[in-house]
Amino acid sequence: MSQDPLRARIAALGALGNDRHDRDFLLTWEQRAETIRAVLLIAEILEDLARANLSARVFASGLGLSIFCDKSTRTRYAFRAGCNLLGLMTEELDESTSQIAHGETVRETATMIGFLTEVVGIRDDMFLGEGHRYMAEVAASLDESFRAGVLRQRPAVLNLQCDLDHPTQSLADLRHLAQTFGGLEALRGRRLAMSWAYSPSYGKPLSVPQGVVALMARFGMHVVLAHPEGYDLVDEPLDAARRFAAESGGSFEIAHSMEEAFAGADVVYPKSWAPMTVMRERTRLLRGGETAKLADLEREALAMNARFTSWECTEAMIRLTRDGGARYLHCLPADVTGVSCARGEVSREVFERARLDTYREASHKPFVVAAMILATRFADPAKVLMALVDAGQPRRRE
Amino acid sequence: MSQDPLRARIAALGALGNDRHDRDFLLTWEQRAETIRAVLLIAEILEDLARANLSARVFASGLGLSIFCDKSTRTRYAFRAGCNLLGLMTEELDESTSQIAHGETVRETATMIGFLTEVVGIRDDMFLGEGHRYMAEVAASLDESFRAGVLRQRPAVLNLQCDLDHPTQSLADLRHLAQTFGGLEALRGRRLAMSWAYSPSYGKPLSVPQGVVALMARFGMHVVLAHPEGYDLVDEPLDAARRFAAESGGSFEIAHSMEEAFAGADVVYPKSWAPMTVMRERTRLLRGGETAKLADLEREALAMNARFTSWECTEAMIRLTRDGGARYLHCLPADVTGVSCARGEVSREVFERARLDTYREASHKPFVVAAMILATRFADPAKVLMALVDAGQPRRRE
Amino acid sequence: MSQDPLRARIAALGALGNDRHDRDFLLTWEQRAETIRAVLLIAEILEDLARANLSARVFASGLGLSIFCDKSTRTRYAFRAGCNLLGLMTEELDESTSQIAHGETVRETATMIGFLTEVVGIRDDMFLGEGHRYMAEVAASLDESFRAGVLRQRPAVLNLQCDLDHPTQSLADLRHLAQTFGGLEALRGRRLAMSWAYSPSYGKPLSVPQGVVALMARFGMHVVLAHPEGYDLVDEPLDAARRFAAESGGSFEIAHSMEEAFAGADVVYPKSWAPMTVMRERTRLLRGGETAKLADLEREALAMNARFTSWECTEAMIRLTRDGGARYLHCLPADVTGVSCARGEVSREVFERARLDTYREASHKPFVVAAMILATRFADPAKVLMALVDAGQPRRRE
Repeated sequence: MSQDPLRARIAALGALGNDRHDRDFLLTWEQRAETIRAVLLIAEILEDLARANLSARVFASGLGLSIFCDKSTRTRYAFRAGCNLLGLMTEELDESTSQIAHGETVRETATMIGFLTEVVGIRDDMFLGEGHRYMAEVAASLDESFRAGVLRQRPAVLNLQCDLDHPTQSLADLRHLAQTFGGLEALRGRRLAMSWAYSPSYGKPLSVPQGVVALMARFGMHVVLAHPEGYDLVDEPLDAARRFAAESGGSFEIAHSMEEAFAGADVVYPKSWAPMTVMRERTRLLRGGETAKLADLEREALAMNARFTSWECTEAMIRLTRDGGARYLHCLPADVTGVSCARGEVSREVFERARLDTYREASHKPFVVAAMILATRFADPAKVLMALVDAGQPRRRE
Repeated sequence: MSQDPLRARIAALGALGNDRHDRDFLLTWEQRAETIRAVLLIAEILEDLARANLSARVFASGLGLSIFCDKSTRTRYAFRAGCNLLGLMTEELDESTSQIAHGETVRETATMIGFLTEVVGIRDDMFLGEGHRYMAEVAASLDESFRAGVLRQRPAVLNLQCDLDHPTQSLADLRHLAQTFGGLEALRGRRLAMSWAYSPSYGKPLSVPQGVVALMARFGMHVVLAHPEGYDLVDEPLDAARRFAAESGGSFEIAHSMEEAFAGADVVYPKSWAPMTVMRERTRLLRGGETAKLADLEREALAMNARFTSWECTEAMIRLTRDGGARYLHCLPADVTGVSCARGEVSREVFERARLDTYREASHKPFVVAAMILATRFADPAKVLMALVDAGQPRRRE
Repeated sequence: MSQDPLRARIAALGALGNDRHDRDFLLTWEQRAETIRAVLLIAEILEDLARANLSARVFASGLGLSIFCDKSTRTRYAFRAGCNLLGLMTEELDESTSQIAHGETVRETATMIGFLTEVVGIRDDMFLGEGHRYMAEVAASLDESFRAGVLRQRPAVLNLQCDLDHPTQSLADLRHLAQTFGGLEALRGRRLAMSWAYSPSYGKPLSVPQGVVALMARFGMHVVLAHPEGYDLVDEPLDAARRFAAESGGSFEIAHSMEEAFAGADVVYPKSWAPMTVMRERTRLLRGGETAKLADLEREALAMNARFTSWECTEAMIRLTRDGGARYLHCLPADVTGVSCARGEVSREVFERARLDTYREASHKPFVVAAMILATRFADPAKVLMALVDAGQPRRRE
């Protein structure tokens, strides 16, 4: 591979500047557009390096810690692979084997695990109103200890999914769209339908649709959000979507059916989520340890879902999209009708046609994680990347 | 250490060729004899490098994932140590903390954890008829995603023990025998007794004896398999043993007592395993969640075992072997009479005399794992190894 | 940073010699004073390297294994971070996923996990009379296999807390004191109060106070130990404290109240621990599986603790210390009155003032672990450290 386009990309990155150094990456809508562009560009450059078999090790030692308050296969892998790509060893802080569960304050623990740590990745998406707050608390604790000189370096906190946003997912989605359509600029004017879809399961977080609408509206896309009554999302990301749409020349609107949302769409993202009221009540019951009532709540929520089984991404739905050929996105795993459940978010035919493409969509996640690390841990990521190219060390011997 | 013999060994390796590149290592009997020889030779060369304090890091980054569907200390360690030796960071895919258990298809997961992965090691030995099938399914999924360009590299699937074979064990055993007797050629004509032995436990897999007879019969050894009625092994590896014995000038026969098998043996491998019918029934009950019946089955199986407590490798048994001095092999842990159980596979005296030697046997496993990785992930392992010798980087500073 | 003071420190280290090579670090009172000084100096040098962004990777590959028989966040992190700093990949030997719980002998397992291992860190602090014995047994097994040539290298066993001592903690405490007061020599003549303090919890190990008094008495400090009747510590470390105090010109005495101990103290270390008799009874009950009686024992122990709620480190207590301004030490987490419990070891005001300083105290632990590894795994740590300075490889790119 000729390295000239690679060097050009790195030079373009340098021009974007970096305001994330010694800070965190928690919500995309808090970031400058340049920061979003920079993270996407770093991810792309890291993919180029991998393709060219060039090592991206920027750390000879150092730790990437993860805290997962919920099950995870993909994001956990993406975090570990992204850290490893840069030379960090990963460790999982397992609440069941640690003393966190023993009344230890967040403040103290954040420092205790920060002494030689470069990045702390956190997934905390189960409790509405809590996940983001927890991450911000960890970040504030690290700030205090860094300022006091207790920590030699300020570990970055990365949001691996909270109650509000899922930036590693939405950025991988955006990078995938840019690659599909020929660049970020090529997204301008395209229509994306983020639609609720039926699932026979309960309690899926709201952060994916929230993250998607808030992010995609910034790049001139026409974003349509659709869901049945009662499945509203949190205001903050929707307000951000409106503001960004106005700034970028795109648009953001709410539709009332999957059909309406899909009409003329270039991209569809049919995905289930829980009603916000259910998530709020669930948070309350879980906090109070009222497990008996949780079963009732689940029953109610599933009965509510069952009224909307027609919200399924079928071939007929796809025919409503632009030229009947919209791209299908999903964060995976999807509830596929006749495959993983009797009736789900998407028909077997639609999913099977898009399947390898959803894998491609997911393939960007480790690189997005690594890009966030470079942006938060280095003053000048472009300089560091150029040095990697100059060094020309192979990732693996050949 | 003079590096001349090392360079000579690497040159010999080059002459064997390599047909495993971008493929898997699942069953030894599917491999060419040259491939078996190559893996053994690579393991030996890696041991030479370790002794000479030369770094074997061929990867600056990359992941080695393991999936263990059963408890494991030794093989898990061997996998991790083998990966680490080459520069890969290991991660365990824990079903209890991942979404695999949640109806996610193997196909999808294999790709999701493959993006920056070089090797996937799997232990799945509990269900007759399933372990190997699962590994083949993972491999097929990786093939699809690699062909489609979703994966930049094709992670190798390594069998860390399935229902049919346990190649890291049998290859470590073979490497140990070669070292004990003075090379692979020196095994020609020697007699190996693979014998069932009594154990007060239940459900031990069949893959070790199957792997041992199929592998040892290829190198001109006279392999005798002995077990009580009802403790038959699966046909496939036995057929392979017969075929290989015919080709290699060795032999493969079935004896009907430990005494008969041990008579004149150079090597004995007394080890318990479960009756195949019990393993099949167990698979059926576990699948059906019929846990009550599992307890009955265990009782029956133990009662069946108890009829054969005389199948114990005692001093008297060893006296039947060639010059009363056969080498004792075991994959460990052994059920040692009066040590780990009241009555077991081997007497305390016999085991204690062989104990350090069984540790030596086990010591090859990390290097066998690393050898499999080099064979599957590099077109020309000899070239890579020679480059390591030329580079002369120390494994640790002195 | 100018490297002259760093090189001077490394030269001073060389003069101390090293008798730990290919041995273990289990109890501080078994070590020569020069060894203690050397470990502290290595920790300091490693902190210097980190500050100067110089890589301390001395291993291109190799494993650091940990076995935790008890919950741990801080020490687990310190072990992993210390290993990673030197280039070792860490793995946890999890009893629930390994075969250790299956009657496998310590002897065998120690070797099976030792083939490519440089260090084995063990925490086993729950059972009086057992933790240290277990570590010594692991060490003896490794010795046997190393002597027999089964292991190419002798992995060091590091005590990450046993029933007798907690050397990574006490050495981090000592390093913190040295830094606070201006060097080890500046500790001479200073008064340290190691006092029992009230806690509403049960079963806290005795190893921290034991380790602290035995270690601090060696450097000319006047060490006072105070606890209510019934909260005696094990004889061995107290005898060591007496002996060391006599040798060093310090002193070691027992006081009968927190007030008496604190009077004129330069340093206070108020911390709860369980009555030794309770710990012994607990060991007996746990061994015998008498869980019903454990609840009774816990009730009794808490009732016993409750008689001593006045043993709290309050502002009034601190006013008794030298100039009312003694330094407060704690291994964390502390039971802080009104924060983590209604009434605890220390008042909110006292703790909050000292909080960041206790973080600083803890910050030395990863470096102490790494220092122990350098001392046990290298004949001449000074030479290795000087080579790192000469190499000048950055820990992270800038």
